[in-house]
Amino acid sequence: MAEAAGKVNALLTSLIPHTDAPENRLYDAMRYSSMAGGKRLRPFLVIQGASLFNVSESCALRAAAAVEMVHTYSLIHDDLPAMDNADLRRGKATCHKQFDEATAVLAGDALLTLAFGVLADPKTHGDPQVRCDLIASLAHAAGALGMCGGQQFDLMAEKMKLDMGSITRLQRLKTGELIAWSCEAGAILGKQPAEIRHRLQLYAHDLGLAFQIADDLLDAEGSEAEVGKSVGRDAEAGKATFVSILGIERARAQAAMLAEQAAKHLDLFGEKGKLLRDAARFVVERRT
Amino acid sequence: MAEAAGKVNALLTSLIPHTDAPENRLYDAMRYSSMAGGKRLRPFLVIQGASLFNVSESCALRAAAAVEMVHTYSLIHDDLPAMDNADLRRGKATCHKQFDEATAVLAGDALLTLAFGVLADPKTHGDPQVRCDLIASLAHAAGALGMCGGQQFDLMAEKMKLDMGSITRLQRLKTGELIAWSCEAGAILGKQPAEIRHRLQLYAHDLGLAFQIADDLLDAEGSEAEVGKSVGRDAEAGKATFVSILGIERARAQAAMLAEQAAKHLDLFGEKGKLLRDAARFVVERRT
Repeated sequence: MAEAAGKVNALLTSLIPHTDAPENRLYDAMRYSSMAGGKRLRPFLVIQGASLFNVSESCALRAAAAVEMVHTYSLIHDDLPAMDNADLRRGKATCHKQFDEATAVLAGDALLTLAFGVLADPKTHGDPQVRCDLIASLAHAAGALGMCGGQQFDLMAEKMKLDMGSITRLQRLKTGELIAWSCEAGAILGKQPAEIRHRLQLYAHDLGLAFQIADDLLDAEGSEAEVGKSVGRDAEAGKATFVSILGIERARAQAAMLAEQAAKHLDLFGEKGKLLRDAARFVVERRT
Repeated sequence: MAEAAGKVNALLTSLIPHTDAPENRLYDAMRYSSMAGGKRLRPFLVIQGASLFNVSESCALRAAAAVEMVHTYSLIHDDLPAMDNADLRRGKATCHKQFDEATAVLAGDALLTLAFGVLADPKTHGDPQVRCDLIASLAHAAGALGMCGGQQFDLMAEKMKLDMGSITRLQRLKTGELIAWSCEAGAILGKQPAEIRHRLQLYAHDLGLAFQIADDLLDAEGSEAEVGKSVGRDAEAGKATFVSILGIERARAQAAMLAEQAAKHLDLFGEKGKLLRDAARFVVERRT
């Protein structure tokens, strides 16, 4: 995962502009948040997914950089005072704290826009149909019917009593769809048939859910220094989470079960699928 | 222009989701701002540009809807308290006033994302290479090196003394690039050669500049009721504009000259180019 992160970091740096003009502050903010040291889980999933199908590494890296841009933009906007009002992210000042609110709004906007620009570029894949498939599916995963819809649902949820089904749906929209895109992108780049793509969707579904339960567990149990962001905010806000509904022990068992189930979906890829199977276990065991 | 607006409005309405789920508030906000009654200049430019090259109307309308989504998202974010802090837009409450700030951030994000989703869809053009061209050029026009960069430049400009060259550059980034995309999209859809695209770029360049000077004149001279948004804000903020540098009379003459120059670039299209030539004159004579 560290190796993938290094390569994606280098590409992200090269894709974000630099200039002497006054708007360079925007590029600094984009770079600051992109380089704030995340786990790069989504890039890792893209790269490993692509490696199942002999996709060239340079193509996979561009798709990986694109999804990380989308993820980073969502964090920047999510941290804004009007949303989560978070001061700390990945152990560093959030974008609007480091720069200012207007710059943070624009940095998010520009990263989202750049993600689509990167995917539309012939360097991402020689076949424009593949590039359009990547773009259409990313727009769906990140947009009104995916991540943005999930963020809105999350805002509304503060005044609602959610059951297990609603929380699962919320998670799928808010984080699951983008994780699913990351898992499927390699199969799109490799022009795989529907049944292979479906197999990766099943993996992504279980992985995403396991990931969110692990996130809720970290919020309930982790320390701020360890997790690198404010913790205990869910309980404070009286928000229903997997942990508040299932309790810590059952949530932990559920996450572990989902991780095993996710891994199983990739059995057909044999040895090649090992790192993705390991990743499913990693997301529930991580401490940050 | 009213006819184009009617068709684009219908398409925009159909492209924005509707649901009974809690996140429907996001879709309401997207629809509210999309339907807040703008002039639809950019859609008009796309549709008229496409009509020069026998592009099917349904394809042109989708590109037109996409650029209007990008324009609307930029207005929503630009109006936020952290940016222009505007209460009024097109004579109605701004998105964050009508809904709330978090919803407004997300509505902008989701409209931007949807624009790329619309362009990537085969319904926009049968040739995926054309769709990728539209997406790559829109991402450039709207992104860090275009509109977002221009917005950031504008933020920085409040503390700078701008000369004519800098204001021209600011305008090109902030509004010119998206107008240029609107002018060029029809030629992309019609798979036109570089020299034809270049001709439309020249038109767009002069049109965009004329448009901005007219905007500055409206801010300096218009009434709030007429213009439909707060006026006099530039002078209040001590901001350099074309009007503050050139004075009202010279600015008006400059805008008229640019409109004529813009129209001339389209002489080669004969009768077919008439509405676009008229549009150049319209943008400098408009009162809203």
